Amino acid sequence: MLDLCLLGTGGMMPLPYRWLTSLMFRYNGSSLLVDCGEGTQITIREKGWSFRPLDVICITHFHGDHISGLPGILLAMANSDRKEPLLMIGPKGLIRVVNSLRVIAPELPFDIEFIELTQTQQHIETHGYHIDAFRVNHKITCYGYSISIPRAGLFDVEKAKANEVPLKYWNRLQKGEIIEADGQLFEPSMVLGEPRKGIKVTYTTDTRPTNSIRQNAKGSDLFICEGMYGERGDINNAVKYKHMTFEEAAGLARDAGVKELWLTHYSPAINHPEIFMDDVRRIFPNAHAAKDRRSVELNFEE
Amino acid sequence: MLDLCLLGTGGMMPLPYRWLTSLMFRYNGSSLLVDCGEGTQITIREKGWSFRPLDVICITHFHGDHISGLPGILLAMANSDRKEPLLMIGPKGLIRVVNSLRVIAPELPFDIEFIELTQTQQHIETHGYHIDAFRVNHKITCYGYSISIPRAGLFDVEKAKANEVPLKYWNRLQKGEIIEADGQLFEPSMVLGEPRKGIKVTYTTDTRPTNSIRQNAKGSDLFICEGMYGERGDINNAVKYKHMTFEEAAGLARDAGVKELWLTHYSPAINHPEIFMDDVRRIFPNAHAAKDRRSVELNFEE
Repeated sequence: MLDLCLLGTGGMMPLPYRWLTSLMFRYNGSSLLVDCGEGTQITIREKGWSFRPLDVICITHFHGDHISGLPGILLAMANSDRKEPLLMIGPKGLIRVVNSLRVIAPELPFDIEFIELTQTQQHIETHGYHIDAFRVNHKITCYGYSISIPRAGLFDVEKAKANEVPLKYWNRLQKGEIIEADGQLFEPSMVLGEPRKGIKVTYTTDTRPTNSIRQNAKGSDLFICEGMYGERGDINNAVKYKHMTFEEAAGLARDAGVKELWLTHYSPAINHPEIFMDDVRRIFPNAHAAKDRRSVELNFEE
Repeated sequence: MLDLCLLGTGGMMPLPYRWLTSLMFRYNGSSLLVDCGEGTQITIREKGWSFRPLDVICITHFHGDHISGLPGILLAMANSDRKEPLLMIGPKGLIRVVNSLRVIAPELPFDIEFIELTQTQQHIETHGYHIDAFRVNHKITCYGYSISIPRAGLFDVEKAKANEVPLKYWNRLQKGEIIEADGQLFEPSMVLGEPRKGIKVTYTTDTRPTNSIRQNAKGSDLFICEGMYGERGDINNAVKYKHMTFEEAAGLARDAGVKELWLTHYSPAINHPEIFMDDVRRIFPNAHAAKDRRSVELNFEE
């Protein structure tokens, strides 16, 4: 089971009653955060989730509204007595930006490890999360993220027998172990059927629509996408400032064939995003104008 | 008239419904902010005050809960189209800390000027504010601030005549001008009576009680002081972490003979500061457990 909470839905600046866009996952005792603008630590407290198991923080890009809350998050983690290293993933320059912000959080009881993204598409596996980072199109270097929990195939007795796998290794192989024994290499694929459908969530914000989004969002159970502008007529601003209209986000959801779309990262000028949703749903019916702390539990299919 | 708002009352970490301690003044079209932890820009928006006239930001010390909101404030000021320079005042190291935080706010449409405090007591006059910064006693270098609006004496016709000041200069001298004319120097003191009582507010947080506070708070209309610990029994923690109990703050208010005391910077463990106030008021009767955005207009005496 993958638990997620869209901690905030605002773009540009935090407002009373609308936090900046940030997404938190919980899976198997490990938490992963994407972006942390000013105030993210407060909305995490409102949600009641904890800082201690935060193992991974992914940053889309270095505009203030996506990272200004980092020192506060790090200090909150320190206060929770975390000792294990934190992995941070983000565009090239991440180490410089984080260390610069740490001028006010210089001493932490845990290490920070970094992966600076340099390719247009990068795959990272950590703490059970399969992370696909992909370049999008904003004013500065920006990445979208697909977070997947893969699911192995069912145990296949006939296959295990056909591959002459000794019975004593069946259980360990089913759990994903690779075993070298009796001068042979035994792999999980020798006892398992085809991988089953896992869980996939894709998150993109601060970008024009791109093919990288269409491709990476394919097969997503949930697609969380920026909607900076509600009105179709704001397309010129969307192009100029490299953001999207609600309808463009809906077009991406339709093109990628995702199951569900949540809009987020609203312009501070939008008070009631839901008034634009009739037009959005004509393009992609299962679309929602998310509000702060919209949450869902995603489970493997029965 | 001096307008002020205690924007938040929390210490250490921002909580849902309790912002970090920060104080904003408005006087004669110019605003002054003391401290800006994470979320300060949001509570300013809740209050409805604007970012554009923010001319001075004073920082007490460089712990995250007192400065982590600075990038957000600077970006909000930029969004408000401010062009005039901002003056920042704080302990030695201010330039390094601010420039380091500006990694996520590198381009601003206004300059920042700095005054790094190096003395135990320093006086600065800017935008009509008379600022007295004084060293207090915390784990790292920390300053308290007295903000005063002085008030000149009444015009004294007899004095002007006795000093043989030509009538044509009376009005300009009354407004504070110094005039060199007819081979003579005319000063406001030649036409004015004794300075009258002005307005004075003293703000100290993150410190043990000190004589510098007692001296600088003298004559304050309002003394805003940290109260990290409500229980008298927490004195050991107060000493260890260099903070104060409510009663210690009340003792300072009594010793300095201020008119009114507001407590702030509560430990996150304190949910209801008012439950400790009976004991506090036995030491200093006009004491208030401030809540977020407690505000007051201070006027010259009739």
